[in-house]
Parts: sequence; C-alpha cells; structure tokens
Amino acid sequence: MLEELKQRVLLANKSLKTSGLVTLTWGNASAFDATKRLVAIKPSGVPYDELKLEDIVIVDLSGNVVEGTLRPSSDCPTHLKMYQAHPELGGIIHTHSTFATAFAQAKRPIPPYGTTHADAFYGEVPCARLLSKKEIEEDYEGNTGKVIVEALENRDPFDVPAILLPSHGVFTWGESVEKALENAVTLEEVAKMAYLTETICPKTPALDPNLMEKHHKRKHGSSAYYGQK
Amino acid sequence: MLEELKQRVLLANKSLKTSGLVTLTWGNASAFDATKRLVAIKPSGVPYDELKLEDIVIVDLSGNVVEGTLRPSSDCPTHLKMYQAHPELGGIIHTHSTFATAFAQAKRPIPPYGTTHADAFYGEVPCARLLSKKEIEEDYEGNTGKVIVEALENRDPFDVPAILLPSHGVFTWGESVEKALENAVTLEEVAKMAYLTETICPKTPALDPNLMEKHHKRKHGSSAYYGQK
Amino acid sequence: MLEELKQRVLLANKSLKTSGLVTLTWGNASAFDATKRLVAIKPSGVPYDELKLEDIVIVDLSGNVVEGTLRPSSDCPTHLKMYQAHPELGGIIHTHSTFATAFAQAKRPIPPYGTTHADAFYGEVPCARLLSKKEIEEDYEGNTGKVIVEALENRDPFDVPAILLPSHGVFTWGESVEKALENAVTLEEVAKMAYLTETICPKTPALDPNLMEKHHKRKHGSSAYYGQK
Amino acid sequence: MLEELKQRVLLANKSLKTSGLVTLTWGNASAFDATKRLVAIKPSGVPYDELKLEDIVIVDLSGNVVEGTLRPSSDCPTHLKMYQAHPELGGIIHTHSTFATAFAQAKRPIPPYGTTHADAFYGEVPCARLLSKKEIEEDYEGNTGKVIVEALENRDPFDVPAILLPSHGVFTWGESVEKALENAVTLEEVAKMAYLTETICPKTPALDPNLMEKHHKRKHGSSAYYGQK
Repeated sequence: MLEELKQRVLLANKSLKTSGLVTLTWGNASAFDATKRLVAIKPSGVPYDELKLEDIVIVDLSGNVVEGTLRPSSDCPTHLKMYQAHPELGGIIHTHSTFATAFAQAKRPIPPYGTTHADAFYGEVPCARLLSKKEIEEDYEGNTGKVIVEALENRDPFDVPAILLPSHGVFTWGESVEKALENAVTLEEVAKMAYLTETICPKTPALDPNLMEKHHKRKHGSSAYYGQK
Repeated sequence: MLEELKQRVLLANKSLKTSGLVTLTWGNASAFDATKRLVAIKPSGVPYDELKLEDIVIVDLSGNVVEGTLRPSSDCPTHLKMYQAHPELGGIIHTHSTFATAFAQAKRPIPPYGTTHADAFYGEVPCARLLSKKEIEEDYEGNTGKVIVEALENRDPFDVPAILLPSHGVFTWGESVEKALENAVTLEEVAKMAYLTETICPKTPALDPNLMEKHHKRKHGSSAYYGQK
Repeated sequence: MLEELKQRVLLANKSLKTSGLVTLTWGNASAFDATKRLVAIKPSGVPYDELKLEDIVIVDLSGNVVEGTLRPSSDCPTHLKMYQAHPELGGIIHTHSTFATAFAQAKRPIPPYGTTHADAFYGEVPCARLLSKKEIEEDYEGNTGKVIVEALENRDPFDVPAILLPSHGVFTWGESVEKALENAVTLEEVAKMAYLTETICPKTPALDPNLMEKHHKRKHGSSAYYGQK
Repeated sequence: MLEELKQRVLLANKSLKTSGLVTLTWGNASAFDATKRLVAIKPSGVPYDELKLEDIVIVDLSGNVVEGTLRPSSDCPTHLKMYQAHPELGGIIHTHSTFATAFAQAKRPIPPYGTTHADAFYGEVPCARLLSKKEIEEDYEGNTGKVIVEALENRDPFDVPAILLPSHGVFTWGESVEKALENAVTLEEVAKMAYLTETICPKTPALDPNLMEKHHKRKHGSSAYYGQK
C-alpha cells in the first residue's frame, strides 16, 4: 500500500541526516496522497540510519494508523493539521536546523537579504505566534499545526514554503516531499547567510523588490525559465 | 571481565571522535557497573583510532586498576568522585567540545533558549565554581569531581545531565554511557544554537516555562510519549 | 567537438559541489575557446552528481546553442557578455558561496586584510553596482554581465579575478576554468577570514601595501617564484 | 638518503590537508635532522594529493638543494632561519589555518582563555612584529624567520611552540614534525575557541595562572602524568 510514497518518505528522512539538517533524531518528513487522503510519516524516535521501508507509518487525516507497527512521529498532529487545511501540500518537513533555529529562538522572521532567499521564498520567512499555556497543555502538537495554518491564512502556501516556530524549530513544505526537502536545505543556507550578513552589517536593508520579483519568477509560475522545464 | 561494558565504553570513546566532539585525544568516556561497583574507562592519551577493547581499563571506586595494562585517563579521579556520590549514573563523558567550551571559557551557564535545550536539559546548563589554588595543587582531578557533586546537591542529576567547568570543558552523564554520549552531542548543538541566538539577538529571554515543561515531559518521566515506548 | 574543453567544464562544475562552494544547483562554470569563439557551459538546473559529458552545452558568443540538447545555464548571458568584452578569459564561475555572498548581501567589497587575499587578489574584491528596475526587467542576466564589464573598465581583469554582485552572489574567472575554480575557492576562504577578522577586531586596517605588492608578485608576473614554474 | 625523515615529512604535509588546516596549497611542513644538519621540506606549489616521497626536497642549512628535483617551498628560508637559531626543533609547520589567521590579520596575540590552550601553550600565542619595507624587499622569507627568532629570544621555544605572523598566517614547531602538526591542530582549535569566547563575552579575563601551571605541567616536563609515559 502506497509503497512508492513510503519509499520516497524513507529517502527524504534519511536525507535529513545526510544533508546535515538534523542532529540525533530531531526531524521528520511526511508525504500526502491527496487522492487516498493518507499520510506517510516517519516513526517516532527511530534513528535515520536504522530506518527501513516497513517502519514508515501510514495514517489517515484523523491520525488513525492505517498501516505500520510503530508509533508515528510525535509531531504527526502538526503535519495532519497542515494537510487538512492545505491538501495541495505534497510533503512536509520538520527540523531543528541550526541557523534557522537560532532565528526561531530569537523569535524573529528571516529577512530577505538576497536572491538566494528570493529564489525560494517570496518575502520574509515568518515566525509563527507563541502558543498560550492552554494551547500547550491541551494539544501541543495539534495547536502547533493550528498556528501554522493561521499564519498561512489568505496566502498561497507555496509563495513562502517555510515557517519558524518561536523557541522551537522550523517547518517547510512543497508540492512533493522532495521539494519540501529542497526548501529545508535552502532555508538553512539562507538563514546562515542572513546571520552572517547581519553580524558584519547590522543595518542591511531588505532585498530590492524588483530583484525579489525577478528571481522568484525565474523559478516559479508560468514565465519561469530556470532548469530544463 | 565486564566484556560487554568494555565494548560499549570502547564504542562510546570512538564515537566521541566520529561525532566531532573531540580534537586529538581531548575527551574520554566511562561506564559504571553499579552491582560490581567497577568503572570501565579510556586509557590516557591513546588516539581513538588506535583504541582496542583490551586497552579499556577497569578501576574500582578507589582508583585501583583491576584490569588492563594501561594507565587510566588522567581525568579518572573526576569520574570516580561522580560515581561515588551518584551510583545511579551509568556513564560519564568529558569533552572540550568547541561551542560548549566557549561558554565554559566565558564562565557562563548556557541559558535555555529553545525546546532543543528543554528536550534534554530541564533548565540552564550550570557552570561549576572555580577551584581554589589549594584545590588545584592538592588533587586537581578529584576536586574537579567534588565541585561537580557540589553543584548537583539536592538535585536529580538526570534533570540537567551536563555541567560546564569554568575555563576548561564539559562533563555529561546519563543512565548509560550511550545516553551520556547523546547528552554530549545535544549539549554541543544546544551551545552552538545559544551562541548564534545571542549574537543575532543579545537580549533573548529564556524559554517560556510552559514550553520547557511540555518538552521535557514529552521525553522524560512516566507521561513521556516520544519514541517507541 | 571541443571534447577536451567539455570534459574540463564537466569536472569544474562537479568540483563546485565537492569543494563545498555550492548548495543544490546554485552555481555554474564555463570555459571559452578563444580560437573558435565558443563557450562550453553547464546546463540549467541539472544536479552536479547527475551531470554527464554530453550534458555540457556549447554556445557561440551570441548565445546560439551549437551543440547539446539541454538548455544552457540561466546565467549564460552573463558569461557571454564577459567573454565578449574579455576574450582573454579562459573560464568563468558563478556561485553563491556562503561567506562571499554575505559580503554581497551587505553590498560591501571584501577588504584585503592579509597575504592570503593578496596572493590571489591585488586589492579589494569589488562589489558591482545595483541594476536599475529597467535593467532588471529588460535583460537581467545580460545586464549583470554588463555591470561586471563596467567594473573592469581600464583594469587588467586578472589583477582581481573576482567580483561580488550586490544582494546576489559572486563571479570569478581565470586564464582557464581550473584557475577560475581556484579563485572561487580562494575567494570564499578569504571572505571567511575577513568576516572573522572584522568580528573580533572591527577596525582592522587594510593590508600594508608593501606586503600586498610582495605577495602578489611572488605568485604573478615575470618575477613570480612560487611553484614549479 | 634520509628516507624515513622524508616519509614522515610526506605524511605530515598530507595531514595538513586531511586535518582541514590548509586550503589549496597554502601550507608546508619540514623536519630537521640535527646530526646531518639537513632539512626535508615540501616542494613549492605541489598539491598534497599528488605529493610523492621523491618530491620531498632535502636542503642544507644554507638552502642548497642536496637531494630532489623540485624547487623547495617558497617559505623554505623561514624554516632555515628557525633551524639555524634553534637546532633543537625537530619539525616546523606553516599554515594559513582560518581562525588563527583571523587573529594574525587582526595583528593580535591569542589570549589564553582555557585549559585547552594551557595544555599546549604556556601563555599567550604571540604575534610577531611587522617587517619593514626594506626587510620585505630584500629577503622577505628569510626576514620572516628572523622576526620569529627575535620573538623567541630568551625563551624556551617549546613553552609556546607557535607564533602568528601579522596579516599573514602561522608557524608552529615541535620536537618532531608530528608534534609540530599536533601543535598546528591545537592552535587552530584554540583560536576558534578564543574567537567564540570573545564574541559572546568580550571582556573574558585570561586563564587563572594556577590552572595554566597545573595543565601545562600535566602534559610537559618531568612531573607530567598525561598519557602512557
């Protein structure tokens, strides 16, 4: 069942490790089959090196395990809230990647300082609001998904396919789990460049909107001309 | 004798190198068998690549070599003081890991800025007090253990299983040597994130206590729900 | 056709990845055959690991594809403007290498702080001017080449074989594509050293002109005595 | 002739690369045979990967090539001045290692902030004086050796076996070329820790002299007790 999707989720999770985005087991990737309305996700706490195809858990949008013997990622309710509100998402990734998490800990969005940022993110990468004590206690992971969905209200989620969680880490997404992974890699590199830019030039202004527009449209939308179509 | 424990101590010491926590021979791992009251520890100054099972030294809690032909780590008396006071510790690790040592050199505890910290450390990672001239001259390594034990007084050592030694480096511990290693890896990453957070946002407040509580309890105690049981 | 040049361009592009200068597909290398007036360049958006000899595109100086089935790099018009104005260039490389891009995002030249800089760059590495809205909209990549050529006016392009593009990234070049690659590696390391120098000592003055002169002449010109001739 | 010494110099030079201390060909290692008064040194500009045993050059203390077909390192005259003044040195290494060179570019000694420093360097790592225009023009590399020897006057060179060259890079040495390499590795890590310490805590005082004394004597002199003797 969904063998190909499970295979891709397996590979994306292993890539979190090999691409240097995660330490220990601090991250997870999922993919969504919009037709069957099922999610393939990493099991909780399993090291990436040991992860096997049969370990990938299939859950429905209510969180029921449909296939697999392991417990899904503890962050699964966050993924589900996002797929419920945005079934156009093909994949979601959560990490504590180092430089992006530094911005999250500072509770600051990542300003767009260059075209590297604009190629992937059409504007600043926002920082979600803090959860209340009640939201933390009642349904921490579900409410984390809720505030992400709030932040995306009235926006195309693919314009800026990433968000920071204050004091926590990051979520990225994409049309596929492979694209979500690429966005996670880009986010960390963009965060590192923003960090370095601010520490040598604290008052750097945001990117010229004309360059933002140009670079984003080189890679996205009907007039894109980057790559082999 | 204690072959399995020696094997695990061998692996933990080699992992210090492969995980990037140590340069040259600047670190050591030990494990404690609480029933036999014996410690397996790295020999002094032996490169991790050359380390073999028979090189691991077994000492009793008074520091007598019970098995092995090499001299134990020069930091052995520190490990022993800690096991004497806290026989519930299953493993101890000492490193000079780069970012954590920068905080130690600044003689500052590592503030909890995020959930990555809270997942492992329930509050700031403290910095032990300085040794007096007399303590340094009379029994440097033993007294280093003594000030660590002092800092743990009236605390559950597993709440914050790490400490900084001012101007020196770090010690971490755990229920097992594998857990002590995991805590050493986490400490370095948390120190790096704290460094980056402070350098882009110097007045970042400590983590919201509700998030601290939530994240720690996700992974520790009877209501933990992270991982596979 | 031009098999040897294509082979060298293939290798230079793969080296961009293995030398840590690029993330994902954010960089490209080209080489110029001044006799045939043809350019060998990376195809757009193809991952370095998958790149094969037959993927390398041959274009003439007007941008017509002379050989190859893939679309050339979207940055090809920038390379072409540079070869048109400076047919003495044997190779050109574009990257978003991290530390150099931080200076580009800060819209600052890289000051010469040491002999590592002087060995490759005879003076500061300049930052090109910003493009106007019109220049961005009408011919972004071509005009990027135009401003680089402007910045080189009345200069020997080999004196400082590198330039920063504000808010964007870097271009380097050389007598050959291999030398352009060496300059790209040097630029990133020099940018990192300049970053570190400024963050521990903000008012560091530029390198003594006598040392600049000495180190540059050790490696360049008729009195060079570095290497095996 | 001196095959074993050449073999060790070959390995030390290759280790400069694998240990991350050098970029491209920016570093060299030599060893001294005090009985024969001959130096084995890297040839100029040869990449470490391609370096073979027969490439290692043997020179006498006047700089005459005694064996080998390649030109010795352009920094050879610096090495020779050092061996002439201090025939007790068994090996010398020159690098532009990143963090240490940042201090050199800032023209600042590296303060001793911790025991990691004290284990290898008994006091701050000094920064040599600048060369005059005349010294640069007349005999740059020889005079570089001269100012290093000046800085060592009335000191045991093994107390602090490293020096920074302002705006340039570093030299380290030791009783053997292997020990010089170990000191080069330590210097870079100590420089990185000092950088991080200063950037989170700018007014960190130097290490307590009692700890300096204790740690240095753990590893050096007749009362050393680190390692397997």
